[in-house]
Amino acid sequence: MHRENSVPQYKVLGTRPIRHDGVDKVTGRAVYGNDVQLPKMLHGKILRSPHAHAKIKKIDTSAAEKLPGVLGVVTAADLPGLKDKIAELGEGAVNLKHLGGNCLAHDKVLYKGHAVAAVAAINPNVAEEALGLIKVDYEPLPAVIWVLDAMKPDAPLLHDDVRTDMMGKLADKPSNISKHLHFEIGNVEDAFKKSDIVIEREFKTASVHQGYIEPHVATANWNADGQLTIWASTQGSFTCRHQVAELLEIPISSVKVIPCEIGGGFGGKIAVYLEPVAAALSRKTGRPVKISMSRADCFEGTGPTPGSFMRLKLGATKDGKLTAGEAWLAYDAGAYPGGMIGPGCMCVFSCYEFAHAKVDGFDVLMNKPKTQAYRAPGATQAAFACETVIDELAEKLGLDPIEFRLKNAAKEGTRRVDGPVYPRIGLVECLEAAKNSPHYKSKLTGKNRGRGVAAGFWFNIGLKSAASASVNSDGTVTLVEGSTDIGGSRTGIAMQLAETLGITAEEVKPQVGDTDTAGYTDVTGGSRVTFATGLAAYHCGLDVQKQMCERAAAIWECKPEQVTVEEGVYRNNGKSLTFKQLAAKLHETGGTVMGRASVDPQGFTNGFGVHIADVEVDPETGKTTILRYTAIQDAGKAVHPSYVEGQMQGGSVQGIGWALNEEYFFDDAGKMRNASYLDYRMPTALDLPMIETIIVEVPNPTHPYGVRGVGETPIIAPPAAVANAIHGATGLRMRDLPMAPHKVCAELMKK
Amino acid sequence: MHRENSVPQYKVLGTRPIRHDGVDKVTGRAVYGNDVQLPKMLHGKILRSPHAHAKIKKIDTSAAEKLPGVLGVVTAADLPGLKDKIAELGEGAVNLKHLGGNCLAHDKVLYKGHAVAAVAAINPNVAEEALGLIKVDYEPLPAVIWVLDAMKPDAPLLHDDVRTDMMGKLADKPSNISKHLHFEIGNVEDAFKKSDIVIEREFKTASVHQGYIEPHVATANWNADGQLTIWASTQGSFTCRHQVAELLEIPISSVKVIPCEIGGGFGGKIAVYLEPVAAALSRKTGRPVKISMSRADCFEGTGPTPGSFMRLKLGATKDGKLTAGEAWLAYDAGAYPGGMIGPGCMCVFSCYEFAHAKVDGFDVLMNKPKTQAYRAPGATQAAFACETVIDELAEKLGLDPIEFRLKNAAKEGTRRVDGPVYPRIGLVECLEAAKNSPHYKSKLTGKNRGRGVAAGFWFNIGLKSAASASVNSDGTVTLVEGSTDIGGSRTGIAMQLAETLGITAEEVKPQVGDTDTAGYTDVTGGSRVTFATGLAAYHCGLDVQKQMCERAAAIWECKPEQVTVEEGVYRNNGKSLTFKQLAAKLHETGGTVMGRASVDPQGFTNGFGVHIADVEVDPETGKTTILRYTAIQDAGKAVHPSYVEGQMQGGSVQGIGWALNEEYFFDDAGKMRNASYLDYRMPTALDLPMIETIIVEVPNPTHPYGVRGVGETPIIAPPAAVANAIHGATGLRMRDLPMAPHKVCAELMKK
Repeated sequence: MHRENSVPQYKVLGTRPIRHDGVDKVTGRAVYGNDVQLPKMLHGKILRSPHAHAKIKKIDTSAAEKLPGVLGVVTAADLPGLKDKIAELGEGAVNLKHLGGNCLAHDKVLYKGHAVAAVAAINPNVAEEALGLIKVDYEPLPAVIWVLDAMKPDAPLLHDDVRTDMMGKLADKPSNISKHLHFEIGNVEDAFKKSDIVIEREFKTASVHQGYIEPHVATANWNADGQLTIWASTQGSFTCRHQVAELLEIPISSVKVIPCEIGGGFGGKIAVYLEPVAAALSRKTGRPVKISMSRADCFEGTGPTPGSFMRLKLGATKDGKLTAGEAWLAYDAGAYPGGMIGPGCMCVFSCYEFAHAKVDGFDVLMNKPKTQAYRAPGATQAAFACETVIDELAEKLGLDPIEFRLKNAAKEGTRRVDGPVYPRIGLVECLEAAKNSPHYKSKLTGKNRGRGVAAGFWFNIGLKSAASASVNSDGTVTLVEGSTDIGGSRTGIAMQLAETLGITAEEVKPQVGDTDTAGYTDVTGGSRVTFATGLAAYHCGLDVQKQMCERAAAIWECKPEQVTVEEGVYRNNGKSLTFKQLAAKLHETGGTVMGRASVDPQGFTNGFGVHIADVEVDPETGKTTILRYTAIQDAGKAVHPSYVEGQMQGGSVQGIGWALNEEYFFDDAGKMRNASYLDYRMPTALDLPMIETIIVEVPNPTHPYGVRGVGETPIIAPPAAVANAIHGATGLRMRDLPMAPHKVCAELMKK
Repeated sequence: MHRENSVPQYKVLGTRPIRHDGVDKVTGRAVYGNDVQLPKMLHGKILRSPHAHAKIKKIDTSAAEKLPGVLGVVTAADLPGLKDKIAELGEGAVNLKHLGGNCLAHDKVLYKGHAVAAVAAINPNVAEEALGLIKVDYEPLPAVIWVLDAMKPDAPLLHDDVRTDMMGKLADKPSNISKHLHFEIGNVEDAFKKSDIVIEREFKTASVHQGYIEPHVATANWNADGQLTIWASTQGSFTCRHQVAELLEIPISSVKVIPCEIGGGFGGKIAVYLEPVAAALSRKTGRPVKISMSRADCFEGTGPTPGSFMRLKLGATKDGKLTAGEAWLAYDAGAYPGGMIGPGCMCVFSCYEFAHAKVDGFDVLMNKPKTQAYRAPGATQAAFACETVIDELAEKLGLDPIEFRLKNAAKEGTRRVDGPVYPRIGLVECLEAAKNSPHYKSKLTGKNRGRGVAAGFWFNIGLKSAASASVNSDGTVTLVEGSTDIGGSRTGIAMQLAETLGITAEEVKPQVGDTDTAGYTDVTGGSRVTFATGLAAYHCGLDVQKQMCERAAAIWECKPEQVTVEEGVYRNNGKSLTFKQLAAKLHETGGTVMGRASVDPQGFTNGFGVHIADVEVDPETGKTTILRYTAIQDAGKAVHPSYVEGQMQGGSVQGIGWALNEEYFFDDAGKMRNASYLDYRMPTALDLPMIETIIVEVPNPTHPYGVRGVGETPIIAPPAAVANAIHGATGLRMRDLPMAPHKVCAELMKK
């Protein structure tokens, strides 16, 4: 681990305590969504469309309702009418009509696997049997599943009321292009003309799934007084509450969401699927209802990341200065608007200084599941395009790929094509760390081997977080926060509270509260939790500390402002009390001390990473083997380095899967043919070497401890780094993800 | 309902909203202790002593351990060694050695039903069977079960290390008298000499049980990381945590107590019985363990209120002024020190102005279950003695019993025999309300009928409470507090927060947090919850309001102190926002607003009640029938009048049961012979008329809304009121509780 000297040293931050929820998780005591058992609970199942595109003419549920053991059947007719209303739901705006239509299809099914009806029965087997008794009269419609096809004027239309939104202006007539973004700075045409070298390439990427190990599951209990309780596997209990309340047209305070432990989300567990359906079944049956998805349901019925078609053009001078960039990005939105084109456009050129750049992005509707966020959503596709052209430019210019990037790297003051100007960022430091790494300094020898480098950029969004705390008489502090813990965030947040109070991480007892217990907190996503909820914990700690000073002052009969605090020791006029000693006196001085804070850090912070991949390509089969892989990343202050490393390793591995293996394999009718872990083939520990990590610490100026989010950045660089390494090994420039053996083989044979 | 004009009118306080937990409770959704089900949970059973007093020579658990399905057996040897340490456990000091010894007997069993060993097995039947295989070698010792016998110098000693504590001074040698209290003001001897009339009488009361409908139950899970979670039916989750931590010698922060809903406690669910045993079994077996008591276990193995022997002497002048009082009170402590003699001594004369009074009180050990608090612990016995002598004095002086009481009633400035001087209190107002009541103004006619009146006094203890709250964007507020809700306190506390914020009771969503979620809060007891936790909610509301002003100021670009608030409307310079409107803007102005407060109101407040009973006594059988019954009580501000009335009715009924029916019926060997609801015979709805209630509101000067606790006062007057009514019906002065038919019959026959 590499540390910048400029980072202050802390007592708790930067250490590696055992996570507070660790034992519960390894011993099986932790309660996940599927562990929820309620008295008289029913089991729900979802009927899904066999067609990629069809009109629903009629649904006859009568036979299913009559099956003994079935207590209720719901269709879209059991949900409130469609509301064409945009709601701000934690991580972006959502049209409720589309959100609701994705939970239970209204007049049309838009993809194979689209939910059509749901049954609640005394056990899952009866529910499954009942699905077979629901008669749906479909009128199949032509399906479109390739982005360029869907963009054609004569393509089958998914929605007759969606018109292209071009930077706020709506097109005249409906189209599958739901959004067209355009960013531009400088004079791109002119700059290309003046360039010594210009490269333009086309790219394709496939739909890939987040592949969280825990399928979606939700349990709902609609009480006789109208209070709805939902036990959810969600990235955001408050966001889930808001969505459910909007879709069911009930006040948010009528809904309590209890977030269970979550077996991965990666962005795919923000939108609701099962929750409103389970709630509708519970209302209808008067009993709690649990619905869990199968793995195939997850692949076919939830949201993968967009597949894409991209054109990217870069210009440079002979001495290696980037002159201009132009990108044309068309991303799958899937069945409903709201794809990931926005961050794709914002990230494509964000690692470099461009005086002249232009980006056009398109969010394209087609008969595939509605896409959802997946770890740095939209950025990996764009980086694949940009970073491979960068590599090609460096090659053509005869420059070391890291040197070329250093010459052009974004830094404090660089303006992004979409407008913002960077504050202090760490890309240069990451590139330097990569250059000086044992990996990059090592010599790669052997046949069919190559080394690739790529950089990646992602935001840390801010959004709203809250924390509250209470001091125990034994000097420990309980902490309640509302961020569902996917990657050890309980501990990362607790450590920031501990640092603030001058106690140990173990002396803080963190818990994730439900929506009636924790203060409003946005989703676990956008690399925001350790940053923003950590910030809430910091301010909550200051609120505790202020009151502890008041107590000390009461004991010492001085003014609170005469009490000083340093590393958890309270002092006045030669007297001192540690936090623990003072905590033991709270019962005599007015009861416990509680702290609270609510934050909404405005604007974005920024995370950069640089990855190095060594690969060997089997010339016979086209199979690419990762020989060595190093991820370098600016974590700001790395709160818990093991978790930062874990994020870097996990993101790298997912990115490698995306690079080499993973894709939704559709047949011509728009049916996914590999909807199982076995056929979808994510990389396992056996497929890869240990991922090496180097943490760079360039403090985030917008956080008191300099913390940056780290969760998403590491998935961005891998496909490009691997592609560049494959080029090193084979001389091929692969521009179609995944770079599966059959594709590499085909290219090798062409050559 | 009667209201004093001096009480300010409120918008929420004084209304009768539906309780927030009502539907959950009437539909069976509420989770009580016995509803807790955990994966791999074992069931525990407790082996209890068949002897009232015996030495344990040996316990052989080997056969039980070998029984298939048994996973663990524990005895006192599995708990940490005895600690002769006094711990402050929420409602008074407890010697841990005695607390622990009562959970699992060490060298001696001290009462029939004393816990000796415990088994954890795969189901309750196997556990029960295993109990029969535990061989305990007892050496029976002589038992003592009557208080005056136990006080004799040659009585069998329960503890050879307990010496009488007389106001802090320890006696030289051990004794069954664990405590001797003495309070005195003025010159009693002299005052009696100068009195025109002096009456001295002796009284007896039996042991009675709180009779909560839900037996004790506890589930413990000792995790592999040493974290212990307990699901408890307890009146105080933090007190339970503290006791368990002390007994198991682990830090309080290693213990999390989750309070389940509770089916009554009345003081009997403050001390732990099952929790440390379940924890020890869980530690031993590595699995969660649940133990529930049977009804017989509750009677025999938990703490009833003390039986007593009392001598009481009062003097008065001819014109009806009390001159002096003297009381000698001997209360059962049961098997361990820590009985209820303290409040007995403090309450006996507390309704009247005495210039001269003397009280001696004795806490007496004997071979009965350790006594515990039971609604106004110790006061009912004392009031039975005092209020019947008062009645006799009034009779002898030819004064109306209410007029006599009014002449002598305690008021603001009256000094109690134990020292404190009353602030504003409401006894006179209650007596006036009684005098003016429809009941007292009605004429009682018919043979064998009589009317009785009695007064009662009880404290409101303060102790520590905390509350935290968070504002939802729909204008509702979630509230987390730590008082287990026995009598609707969630709603009573929520109403005070609502009043403070200018919103409705329904707009507050209250919940009882566990020990990791709520701030430290003492037991639900001592009539403190609505008063003290309500006070915390009030201050929490002020904390919310202050921040809401800051948000309004940010919106209006003024200073926070320029924003005024009245009834939930925020105003500045002609602009205004309701709480709800402002709540909807929190997401734009920094996220939610959270509030928190911790309080420890020092000192006591005071509650008074006056009861009127009409009875008819069957001269053939001695059976007393309650014809009409009215409870009058000063509630300060009655937050939720229905719950105040409910407390008055419930307390009255329990007091009537105590007066007429209930008693522990012991045989000579100290075995209780009526340990079932059928034989113990508490009054049911069929036995009694509707209890009429009159709420008097004399604001409590120590609470911003004038709230007083109301839970305990109503149990104090009934035995005396009924005894006085029996005198009216029969001419008999009954001085032995319960005034069961056979006793009344015997007295009638004597006459």
